[in-house]
Amino acid sequence: MFKKLCLIGVGLIGSSVARAAKKHGMAESIVAYGRKEDLDNLQTAQSLKVIDHYYLDMRSALASADFVVIAVPVGAFESIFRLLQPHWRDDVLYSDVGSTKGSVIDAAHLVFGQIPGNFIPAHPIAGAENSGVEAGKEGLFDNKRLIITPLEDSNCFMLDKLTRFWEGIGASVSLMNVTHHDAVLAATSHFPHVLAFSLVNMLGREDEQAEIFKYAAGGFKDFSRIASSDPTMWLDICMANRENIVSLIQQLQNQLSEVKQMLEGEENQHLMETFKYANEARQRYLDQLEI
Amino acid sequence: MFKKLCLIGVGLIGSSVARAAKKHGMAESIVAYGRKEDLDNLQTAQSLKVIDHYYLDMRSALASADFVVIAVPVGAFESIFRLLQPHWRDDVLYSDVGSTKGSVIDAAHLVFGQIPGNFIPAHPIAGAENSGVEAGKEGLFDNKRLIITPLEDSNCFMLDKLTRFWEGIGASVSLMNVTHHDAVLAATSHFPHVLAFSLVNMLGREDEQAEIFKYAAGGFKDFSRIASSDPTMWLDICMANRENIVSLIQQLQNQLSEVKQMLEGEENQHLMETFKYANEARQRYLDQLEI
Repeated sequence: MFKKLCLIGVGLIGSSVARAAKKHGMAESIVAYGRKEDLDNLQTAQSLKVIDHYYLDMRSALASADFVVIAVPVGAFESIFRLLQPHWRDDVLYSDVGSTKGSVIDAAHLVFGQIPGNFIPAHPIAGAENSGVEAGKEGLFDNKRLIITPLEDSNCFMLDKLTRFWEGIGASVSLMNVTHHDAVLAATSHFPHVLAFSLVNMLGREDEQAEIFKYAAGGFKDFSRIASSDPTMWLDICMANRENIVSLIQQLQNQLSEVKQMLEGEENQHLMETFKYANEARQRYLDQLEI
Repeated sequence: MFKKLCLIGVGLIGSSVARAAKKHGMAESIVAYGRKEDLDNLQTAQSLKVIDHYYLDMRSALASADFVVIAVPVGAFESIFRLLQPHWRDDVLYSDVGSTKGSVIDAAHLVFGQIPGNFIPAHPIAGAENSGVEAGKEGLFDNKRLIITPLEDSNCFMLDKLTRFWEGIGASVSLMNVTHHDAVLAATSHFPHVLAFSLVNMLGREDEQAEIFKYAAGGFKDFSRIASSDPTMWLDICMANRENIVSLIQQLQNQLSEVKQMLEGEENQHLMETFKYANEARQRYLDQLEI
């Protein structure tokens, strides 16, 4: 479908996009741009045939590309937009895979003033706690959601091309406005990560004194899994969506204060209702996964 | 090894003890005591051949049993001890599988005054979010920890028998004092459950308004798994160990306040250290699992 896909970054998500695009014949050739610091990862990507070539300068990477996907940590978007700007072409589709959309749009706004109609922000709801090209999988987006957050000036033809690309590699595409996207993702992904990091940070210090991890059961393994995610990437996401996250921290602190009160006051009935509601809410979530 | 094992309760843990004991030839016959309300579950246990017989009266269940394991929610221990008391025999080994040990010992103290030397409290660090006899597995305790919390008057011969039983069905036995047990388990199991219930409770209400679960990624599934645990059982555990849990709630609230401050003050370096420490602490936990 595309002649040449240029990936800015070939980490877990970028390399999974490349693998899936190859598998489904969605791009004739795939190249990647990276920085000198990324050389090892870029060489691995090429030797694994995830990409056809890599470039350390943006001009060469973009040459005759008709689809550009930015797949770097959200904190790096402003500098990537600055590198793209001198080579920007109206007939190319630009998109991204950033986990926060407000910050991406702010960065585009800073660099371009008015955001070009052929930049269509997107976010695949898929990931893993591992990072780097070797962590990528060609099936990472199969039956996963891909959210596009179109802007007022978004070009409808470009939006259509992007939708077809993601559907072509197995994802299920939804449109959402930017504010709603960032609020929803804060609740289901960003805040749970902050919470897992915070809890494991706290317990880690306890473990140093009392070896508590030795006695942790299987439930703890699953609960804490996301604390094994890449700290750099998550620092960026948390800073980019900090207003929503701060509000959720406040909400959970209030919820925990209520639970504390139920425990101290031995309000069994009340605590039971809290647990039951949570139990049923998770079942509702599981039922949705199966549809 | 034992002639007759009498299980008080054949839920997830009780039935797994029965299955494992049969598999490893640790008991010649296995019976269960249950209440009228448990009749369906008891009948299922018998028809699945998990137990040989069940009884609705304690006297018959205990007849010629040389090993009794209490496997009911921790809130029910006092009433079970009262049922056991008239039939108590010095040559029988009594133990349990309760997740909190302080509350179990308090209940024994209430009923017996001085706690009999042949009651040896124990806790297998194994479980699942499902409950009932059908959720049990014969391999549930394979390579899992079993903590015994002996008391001052515990009979050493009985302790030895209990150790050999659990090692015989695949578990790795450690001794610990009661206070330490309850503090460690609060941190690695009880409090994480409270946290998962609290978070999913809070997000469930958000989901009712904004359908957020539709956009939850795989990380959320693992993180929230323990919120699918049995609310009744966890209500009991949380009430039984509420002092430790309340203190951990307070600690996490403080930790979250710090993180909130880092986000609001854009203290990237500080937040990065928090995330990195958590990431490394979880790796330390995973490394321990593999030993």
